[in-house]
Amino acid sequence: MQYRPAPVSPRTKVRRHPERGVYESETIRAILDEGMVAHVGFVENGTPVVIPTAYGRDADTLYLHGSAAAAWCKRSGGGEPVCVTVTLFDGLVLARSTFKHSMNYRSVVVFGTPRLVTDRREKLHGLECIVEHLVPGRSREARAPNENELLATSVIALDLDEASAKIRAGGPIDDEADFGRPVWAGVLPSSMTYGPPQPDRNVPPLVDVPDYVKNYAR
Amino acid sequence: MQYRPAPVSPRTKVRRHPERGVYESETIRAILDEGMVAHVGFVENGTPVVIPTAYGRDADTLYLHGSAAAAWCKRSGGGEPVCVTVTLFDGLVLARSTFKHSMNYRSVVVFGTPRLVTDRREKLHGLECIVEHLVPGRSREARAPNENELLATSVIALDLDEASAKIRAGGPIDDEADFGRPVWAGVLPSSMTYGPPQPDRNVPPLVDVPDYVKNYAR
Repeated sequence: MQYRPAPVSPRTKVRRHPERGVYESETIRAILDEGMVAHVGFVENGTPVVIPTAYGRDADTLYLHGSAAAAWCKRSGGGEPVCVTVTLFDGLVLARSTFKHSMNYRSVVVFGTPRLVTDRREKLHGLECIVEHLVPGRSREARAPNENELLATSVIALDLDEASAKIRAGGPIDDEADFGRPVWAGVLPSSMTYGPPQPDRNVPPLVDVPDYVKNYAR
Repeated sequence: MQYRPAPVSPRTKVRRHPERGVYESETIRAILDEGMVAHVGFVENGTPVVIPTAYGRDADTLYLHGSAAAAWCKRSGGGEPVCVTVTLFDGLVLARSTFKHSMNYRSVVVFGTPRLVTDRREKLHGLECIVEHLVPGRSREARAPNENELLATSVIALDLDEASAKIRAGGPIDDEADFGRPVWAGVLPSSMTYGPPQPDRNVPPLVDVPDYVKNYAR
């Protein structure tokens, strides 16, 4: 993985809990690669709108896709700014005081003005990145998009030029005055787990669950 | 649980895949109750900003909190519109074609202009809702906020008047022409799992892991 410290902009600078801010490309990429759902924010009629969506990554480009008719795709492909946030929830932090309760998490926030991918080859590549992000290995087996499917889909590319990560890890940080309280404190770790695979009806009898599904992990 | 069909507004109406739109209060509440992280979108200097945060719910009010100094709290408490989205990722949907790949998910999108909670009693209640949302039972044990902690925190209330859910469940919906392909298809279900609890140092020796942590489930 190429190491490239992302430049810190006024927007990406982590202002609350600055000690949690991370700006290295390596960390940003790793969080994006582990995440599954991005929350895309855009402005519609002056109001913020946040929608969940899938994504993929190639080097420092994030690919998003959606129906060519979707409002957010039209806007995002039309030179309007977006904010894309990916959050991994790592655990609950139970402190002795209500106030010090927290979550362990790793998040990435990307600001930018995406571009609509119009080049046919990049569009196919962007879609492949998204499928490979969800299920590595899948694009070798699944049928590639045909012309109608390509027309029905918009692919949007967003550079990771203006991105930052924020990480909270470890136990509660209680006031020492609270240590004596007869209250359990600690972390309840959380993670996403997968499986067992549920085959669709109509899968031909000789087709087994592929290894990349059987051994799926992130 | 009170049943109240939320009115459908132009903003909450699910436009893409309208068959996935759900507007019943019961469904919206259940998704919010199962979720852990909300993605709050607001507009800052004309740009969308999306940040992850904890939340709690009481009836049809969503409570969010943050540092009193945080930009988004100032904005959200200052009469500016927000969009709050909670997404539960339920699984990967592997179709025979790249195009038909999907995710199973349940999401809620809430639009509105929140209010800053200034009433001391409601503020304490809002914070309790947030802690109880994260770890039910916890607020009976953890020390309640003191005056300094209360001053340092902003609590923001957002009504669920303008909210909708979107749900995708079930297997892939392939074109029949693809059924014969020798490609496995189906669902790889996903869920958040917890534990085992990691005690903090300094927990007094006789304090055991409480049942609400030991048996934590969502």
